[in-house]
Amino acid sequence: MTNLEKFQALEHKLQAYQYVLNVVSWDSATEAPKGAFERRADMQSLISQEAFELWTSDEYRDVLDALRNDDSLSELDQKNVEKAHKALSKVSHIPSDEYAAYEKLLALAQRTWEDAKANDDYDSFKDTLGKIIETQRKLIAYRGESKAPYDVLLDDYEEGMNMEKYDAFFDAIRQDLVPFVQKVLASGVQKPAFIDRHFPKAAQKAFVEYLNDVFAYDLDKGLLKESVHPFTWNTHPSDVRYTVRYLEDFVFSSIFAGIHELGHATYEMGVDESLTPTRLKGGTSMGIHESQSRFYENVIGRSKAFWEVHYPKLKSLFPEALKDVDLDTFYLGINWVEQSFIRVEADELTYPLHILIRYECERAIFNDGIALDDLPDLWNQKVKDYLNLTVEKDTDGLLQDVHWSGGAFGYFPTYALGSAYAAQIYYAMQKDLDLDAVILANDIPKINAWLKENIHQYGKTKSPEEIIRDVTGEDFDVQYYIRYLKEKYTPLYLG
Amino acid sequence: MTNLEKFQALEHKLQAYQYVLNVVSWDSATEAPKGAFERRADMQSLISQEAFELWTSDEYRDVLDALRNDDSLSELDQKNVEKAHKALSKVSHIPSDEYAAYEKLLALAQRTWEDAKANDDYDSFKDTLGKIIETQRKLIAYRGESKAPYDVLLDDYEEGMNMEKYDAFFDAIRQDLVPFVQKVLASGVQKPAFIDRHFPKAAQKAFVEYLNDVFAYDLDKGLLKESVHPFTWNTHPSDVRYTVRYLEDFVFSSIFAGIHELGHATYEMGVDESLTPTRLKGGTSMGIHESQSRFYENVIGRSKAFWEVHYPKLKSLFPEALKDVDLDTFYLGINWVEQSFIRVEADELTYPLHILIRYECERAIFNDGIALDDLPDLWNQKVKDYLNLTVEKDTDGLLQDVHWSGGAFGYFPTYALGSAYAAQIYYAMQKDLDLDAVILANDIPKINAWLKENIHQYGKTKSPEEIIRDVTGEDFDVQYYIRYLKEKYTPLYLG
Repeated sequence: MTNLEKFQALEHKLQAYQYVLNVVSWDSATEAPKGAFERRADMQSLISQEAFELWTSDEYRDVLDALRNDDSLSELDQKNVEKAHKALSKVSHIPSDEYAAYEKLLALAQRTWEDAKANDDYDSFKDTLGKIIETQRKLIAYRGESKAPYDVLLDDYEEGMNMEKYDAFFDAIRQDLVPFVQKVLASGVQKPAFIDRHFPKAAQKAFVEYLNDVFAYDLDKGLLKESVHPFTWNTHPSDVRYTVRYLEDFVFSSIFAGIHELGHATYEMGVDESLTPTRLKGGTSMGIHESQSRFYENVIGRSKAFWEVHYPKLKSLFPEALKDVDLDTFYLGINWVEQSFIRVEADELTYPLHILIRYECERAIFNDGIALDDLPDLWNQKVKDYLNLTVEKDTDGLLQDVHWSGGAFGYFPTYALGSAYAAQIYYAMQKDLDLDAVILANDIPKINAWLKENIHQYGKTKSPEEIIRDVTGEDFDVQYYIRYLKEKYTPLYLG
Repeated sequence: MTNLEKFQALEHKLQAYQYVLNVVSWDSATEAPKGAFERRADMQSLISQEAFELWTSDEYRDVLDALRNDDSLSELDQKNVEKAHKALSKVSHIPSDEYAAYEKLLALAQRTWEDAKANDDYDSFKDTLGKIIETQRKLIAYRGESKAPYDVLLDDYEEGMNMEKYDAFFDAIRQDLVPFVQKVLASGVQKPAFIDRHFPKAAQKAFVEYLNDVFAYDLDKGLLKESVHPFTWNTHPSDVRYTVRYLEDFVFSSIFAGIHELGHATYEMGVDESLTPTRLKGGTSMGIHESQSRFYENVIGRSKAFWEVHYPKLKSLFPEALKDVDLDTFYLGINWVEQSFIRVEADELTYPLHILIRYECERAIFNDGIALDDLPDLWNQKVKDYLNLTVEKDTDGLLQDVHWSGGAFGYFPTYALGSAYAAQIYYAMQKDLDLDAVILANDIPKINAWLKENIHQYGKTKSPEEIIRDVTGEDFDVQYYIRYLKEKYTPLYLG
């Protein structure tokens, strides 16, 4: 066996470990009985440890080192080896028992968070959160990087990003967007009444299934299911699943979280199959991933053109709730801007403010060492500052998101970045396609094809920066985001 | 670490591998998209191989050998070590790559069988079946046992059983039961018309959920789902799931397969939790397992007393189909005896004849080396001989069951044996409980408690023979089965 073959065989095994652990996570998030939970955490932890020991074995390290000095590798193999090296160097100094303990902590934390959220009881989650943060710091320290801990995390989720760049990004949003949002909120436009009406679950489900067809989601390679928090799950381009939740008093949740997840899913399904055995498989970064889901959700899903085609279908499914609602009213409703507590149900315009809150809280945790007892107050103060709302219960505040219970600090900022990428991609796409015309022709597969051609197929063979540069012909520029939002919301509220 | 601790740590890891592979199987059988299938087979195979290598490692073998010579072990540890030794000796001479290839073959075979069954195309499955049989023979040969291959398999599924004992068992059934069945079939009693009526799926589902309550199935430790072939799945007593299928033109499928699986599930949930880390966890044998499911399905579920309590509920769910059906007619309907093609939908009385067909076919395959081209004719001839029916399509014939595609030869006979165990257990239980009175009082938990006390809790700490002897005060005796069936069916058809 050559070194390359040895490396590939080891990677194949590591993929198999990841695969089975992914399936266990899917089961856990969607249907496993409550009683299975402690046993599952124990079993997951053991298998993670097995994988971790293989990954950090001398055998793996030696073959990787040998390949890094091998000039005969193809460009693809070189990239794959570099990805593997970078990933390993993040963990190679972590003792395997500490890694296993962390995995187990996270498995248990998921449930602790769920209970805390259900019972509006931050105190019951605080200790677990503290342990996660403390372990994260320890794991970062093992890496021996000279950067600030939060910069390390930001770069993990979006290669090349750090506090300095995000500070600039959010400054631009504050400067240009916050005054605009304030004007919109003061416009005096009346909220359409239909938003709060009752939308029966069965019909919502039927509409999400209809959307699967509209977006050409291939059910031979996918699955739609329910879970508490919507998410996309995949193991390879032929098994990409997503979940929604059905809130009978908030139909937009299943529709727009559904379209959002379809954006993630379509990205994963579009990555070139030949990359599957490599570390170049899957979306290139959190930010680019989010650009695809936001493009689907907002640029397509909340456009007037989209509902000119699909509103009759929706109306037929909800003859009561939408009886007296015309298309213009519906369009205003799905783009209704207001202060709200819950990020995943926030409108497109105030959404970046929700991310700002989380970014500043995470920064306070990792950079300023805020005490966890003070975290609810900090969160609630920021909600007051940016959204002018008073948080009454932590379930609507810092307990609302799953991320921290999964140890995913530094992830949130990519959501806002992804929305900004989406806007820049939108203006680039307009040069090739008349997007409104394509949507009016109910030809979403044409958009899928453009995105696959320009973004999806490449997987991780291109960095986020390269994707943006190759697609748009220039570097990332937050001003496209501002422009897009102003162009969309001015006629609706200030026109 | 002592040898015992080393052994326990290794067993713990092996359980974790089994756990993740079980979850992947559950996913595969209930919802994984079609396209996931080849990748899954590949990933499963790698993880199985990892587990197999650990299991057959020198480290494991050495510690096991040391413990077998250790007089200081507790009785439970001794039993556990002996179970481990027996299991290992079955595979220890199999090269790990052959084992992995077999696992992969089985993963692929599942789908090949599903397609063959759907398309009534035995030829498309034949080669796969041949490979499974050939590999089974090879794997048996590695074990170096002096027994006939089919005896090896029979003992694998029910410790202590072999062709000689099963021949005697089926002879007794032939001699005493077949003439009785013929009398029943010639009785001239008219088939109730309601059986073939339309029973909407949603109401069937509601009734199965109602049955979960009746049988006190704990949904905090379980899950009800749909699959092509109903089955029970478990990883430990707090995660025991089962599936049913809903046939709108055959409501008995969901009701009685459901109660059947609840019997399996209740057994697994009742095993003492302290056995979970050992090889003594779970039901003691296929036959005893089937005795529990058959007891639930037939002794409880097809009793008059049961429906005196629950028929009003069923009638309320199917007001159309059951409008003109009184309790006596319904009771005759659920115990309707007729020749039929499909084992899982066969009545209690002809059921052993379906097993007889499979037993004789498997015997022909493994003992007489029948050509696979001739297998459909053999199967169909036996269906003619025992059930007086002409098989028109293999989907209703030898393609109907999942077992062979999973390599489970020697499994079927335990179904008939389990029914016979159930009858013997029934007469023993009657000494402690007035079963009819308990069922009429809708107090199934009392039956569950009796079964847990006498059977379930012990897991594999008692052998099948010990269970039967301790529960009934005597050795297994097929005559209880004959007696039970005659006592039940004489008044219905010959009274």
